[in-house]
Amino acid sequence: MDVYGRFISLAEWKVLIDDWLANPGQEPFYNLKPDAREAVYDAIFIGGGASGRFGAAAMIARGGRALVIDKWPFLGGSCPHEACVPHHVFSEAARELDYAREFSGEYWYPEWDVTKASILEIRDMFMKNRNTGHSIMNFQSKEQLGLEFILGAWATVVDKNTVEVDGARYKCRNLVLCVGARPTPPDIPGITKKGVYDWATILEDLDYEPNRCVVIGGGKTALEYGSFIQATGCPTTYLSRSPILGTKGLHHVDDDIRDFVVRMLKHRGSVIHEGAEPLEILGEDKVTGVRFRDADGNEQIISTDFVFLGTGERALSGQFGSLGLELNDRGQIVVDAHMETSVKGVYACGDLIDGPMEMFKARKAGVCAARNIMGETDYTFDYSDFPDFLHTTYEVAWTGLSESEAREKYSNVVVIQMPPKGVAPQDCGLPATDGSMFFAFTRPGLNGIIKSIIDADSRKIVGMHSVGFGNKNSFQYLDVLIKQPNGFTIDQMAEVNELFLNDGFPQLHRLRAGQKVLKDL
Amino acid sequence: MDVYGRFISLAEWKVLIDDWLANPGQEPFYNLKPDAREAVYDAIFIGGGASGRFGAAAMIARGGRALVIDKWPFLGGSCPHEACVPHHVFSEAARELDYAREFSGEYWYPEWDVTKASILEIRDMFMKNRNTGHSIMNFQSKEQLGLEFILGAWATVVDKNTVEVDGARYKCRNLVLCVGARPTPPDIPGITKKGVYDWATILEDLDYEPNRCVVIGGGKTALEYGSFIQATGCPTTYLSRSPILGTKGLHHVDDDIRDFVVRMLKHRGSVIHEGAEPLEILGEDKVTGVRFRDADGNEQIISTDFVFLGTGERALSGQFGSLGLELNDRGQIVVDAHMETSVKGVYACGDLIDGPMEMFKARKAGVCAARNIMGETDYTFDYSDFPDFLHTTYEVAWTGLSESEAREKYSNVVVIQMPPKGVAPQDCGLPATDGSMFFAFTRPGLNGIIKSIIDADSRKIVGMHSVGFGNKNSFQYLDVLIKQPNGFTIDQMAEVNELFLNDGFPQLHRLRAGQKVLKDL
Repeated sequence: MDVYGRFISLAEWKVLIDDWLANPGQEPFYNLKPDAREAVYDAIFIGGGASGRFGAAAMIARGGRALVIDKWPFLGGSCPHEACVPHHVFSEAARELDYAREFSGEYWYPEWDVTKASILEIRDMFMKNRNTGHSIMNFQSKEQLGLEFILGAWATVVDKNTVEVDGARYKCRNLVLCVGARPTPPDIPGITKKGVYDWATILEDLDYEPNRCVVIGGGKTALEYGSFIQATGCPTTYLSRSPILGTKGLHHVDDDIRDFVVRMLKHRGSVIHEGAEPLEILGEDKVTGVRFRDADGNEQIISTDFVFLGTGERALSGQFGSLGLELNDRGQIVVDAHMETSVKGVYACGDLIDGPMEMFKARKAGVCAARNIMGETDYTFDYSDFPDFLHTTYEVAWTGLSESEAREKYSNVVVIQMPPKGVAPQDCGLPATDGSMFFAFTRPGLNGIIKSIIDADSRKIVGMHSVGFGNKNSFQYLDVLIKQPNGFTIDQMAEVNELFLNDGFPQLHRLRAGQKVLKDL
Repeated sequence: MDVYGRFISLAEWKVLIDDWLANPGQEPFYNLKPDAREAVYDAIFIGGGASGRFGAAAMIARGGRALVIDKWPFLGGSCPHEACVPHHVFSEAARELDYAREFSGEYWYPEWDVTKASILEIRDMFMKNRNTGHSIMNFQSKEQLGLEFILGAWATVVDKNTVEVDGARYKCRNLVLCVGARPTPPDIPGITKKGVYDWATILEDLDYEPNRCVVIGGGKTALEYGSFIQATGCPTTYLSRSPILGTKGLHHVDDDIRDFVVRMLKHRGSVIHEGAEPLEILGEDKVTGVRFRDADGNEQIISTDFVFLGTGERALSGQFGSLGLELNDRGQIVVDAHMETSVKGVYACGDLIDGPMEMFKARKAGVCAARNIMGETDYTFDYSDFPDFLHTTYEVAWTGLSESEAREKYSNVVVIQMPPKGVAPQDCGLPATDGSMFFAFTRPGLNGIIKSIIDADSRKIVGMHSVGFGNKNSFQYLDVLIKQPNGFTIDQMAEVNELFLNDGFPQLHRLRAGQKVLKDL
């Protein structure tokens, strides 16, 4: 379907995408300038997710010409379709359900037993409406950004300057690969049984209401989905080889933060086995339990009708084998700091390459490739350090060093935190973050924790950590401030004009700022 | 009661404060070093609220000696006792109740009618627990900061170097006045009738469950309490002389933000009369209605059993008359940029002086006074511009210029926003801010709005505006970034490592960054 040159509203896109997905095998959506078949694009972006869409937009902003091709009938990729966006819907549900359970029968909250939430129903709400989000991506890309795209079509890379779509060939000077990754099940006997789900299949395939859940994993995805599942009223057990939040790839997690998160998971009723090795998914054709070896080496069996895999993903690099790109031992495409692969003129971005599977990285990698292609060859992108977050029923966010990392690096470390060290959290009713009022006032131990780590010699803040509500977004900008070339000192933090009741950082720093010899607070 | 030299835990402070307030007329809490009666303090702070406590802490941090005296048996002042903190409890309730009503009968939410919330019950929850917050102020000030204080005692200023408390005199080189302000009822016949409340008396005096509410005012306090009252299920009508959010003292409110806020108030069922003049509070001894003149000059009567005053406050400057301080025409103490009054050695801070009645100003004014007293005489505090916020059921936050202010100042203004201009919000299901998932997916028009105003010539961001959830705290740090000496450009914002699903600012700016000629988005 040729959509070039005519305005398509958000509402029209919604209908078009709904229809395309309901009736597969339809014609792609073509938004191409008339000379597309003769043109040589500055780059063709294979995959229109975070990397491809932002890369193409950055190229157009700089006067280049980009073509984006995606197998799906929408731009935006897996994020709004099945990954980050549904996780945020589930995390918002988890936070609301957390209140519903914690305040059961108090104030305006009804008795909790009556209203056990349905995972299926919440999932269905997301599924029913997700194309609304997709319609915005298409609208914005077409009407506002002027992207050329072919959506709902498979791109075959003929060579690094030629891509074939539906029998037609398109030429480019550069190729940018942006097709992402997919969850890969761990190698456990029985893992293919019905009743084992990951973040993609829980959306597409779940067709019963789980009664118990075993989460395999102890990292972000495991905790985010596990917290939601527990919050709905479905008792959840974690089997994690590493300590919770101690998995490889999660950097700078502070011990106090980890402890708080684990304590709060347990408070909500979750059971945690750290150092556990899953041995077998039990059941005939449907899951009935999981056999695992616990940290003491003993075998145990947990009955369950639902297993959620919060484990790894694998880059979809296989389809580009003909290009002869260098891959690392996990099948990811190797790129340099310009996002260029081992083959000149071929770039790779997002979850196809090493590093965090996060939006900022995917998007900025696409932008980095585009800027280099457009001649800004001194522009590089370093994603080795970054602010980070996850959801449990809380927002957990951090940037910079953990306390123990800071103590290894600096000889004179000062810590500012709430609740203060040595104080029982359940006695401390000061909301650690902005959105913790009910907890602070009625369940003080549950309201959160904030922590700031300072190199007292330079007075610079070197790490910030928070668990709470309404605190996450700030870490985008705190990350900018503390990583400025000259850093951000306790005395500068004291000058911030806080929006009370805030995350606590400006006021707590202010109480110690100005001291010649800084002290903990 | 002498508490000096012995550790008092949070839990012990809670008991002591509970007891003191339940049995007035008790002995004050003395935390004084043994030589207090002979010492000359660098400053005595009259009032231990935001200004006094932070000022004293800043003085001690710089090696000075400070004494804080407060009439209440706790530090922290009116904020945790009856002002900002209860408002935040109510605003959190408002947000939760908003979901309860909007999703009535959907997902896990019960039918709304069954669960109409009780204002009294939520108020009582706050009242029962507020001393927990006070205990932290006392604990932190005593055990961590080492403040000297006398709490639960009236301070009489003998002269600018002498303060008398309970018959004893204390000497100081400087006096810092920090006793704040109190709500003042507008001059309307019948205003003293039972059934008329403000933010202080709603806590202390309300003894029935309101069935209808008239809010007088259209600024922050009016909207914050009005939104809560409406959210509980008590229908609320606003009578505002100025347009909503158009009252004097609220600066930089963007028209689109104001429109969204008003539209959302109405969506929740509130009735708004702008340009209205309240003429009389009706009823025998208890309120039965309000008579007012509407914008067309016609008189109307609204029946109600509850009136909430969201109108002005008056500085408590009267008790310092003997010092001969210069006051402005609103009775506020006039200070210079060092917080020094017309009398040398006497400083005034917080709500006693002009400017926003906000925590950042109160605290930093106290710090400014302390730093000047400690010899940093080039340190000044300018609170003429600042980031701002309020709660409805939403978080509304902003910093810098509104679009119309920017267009007056700059000839080449570019606006980046979501939902985009010209798009029907109800078609736009992209969450404008982090915590808007359920609204974005099921009630797109309700999820929020973000806006960034850019001077396209310098490429600097000159204003940022947001209505949503989870977005407020960020504005503390956005304010720092855009007001840096060199500003913060669209291209710098594009480099921020966003914590997806975030406030939308980094990604939207990134889609336009790099353009030679910037365009709206």
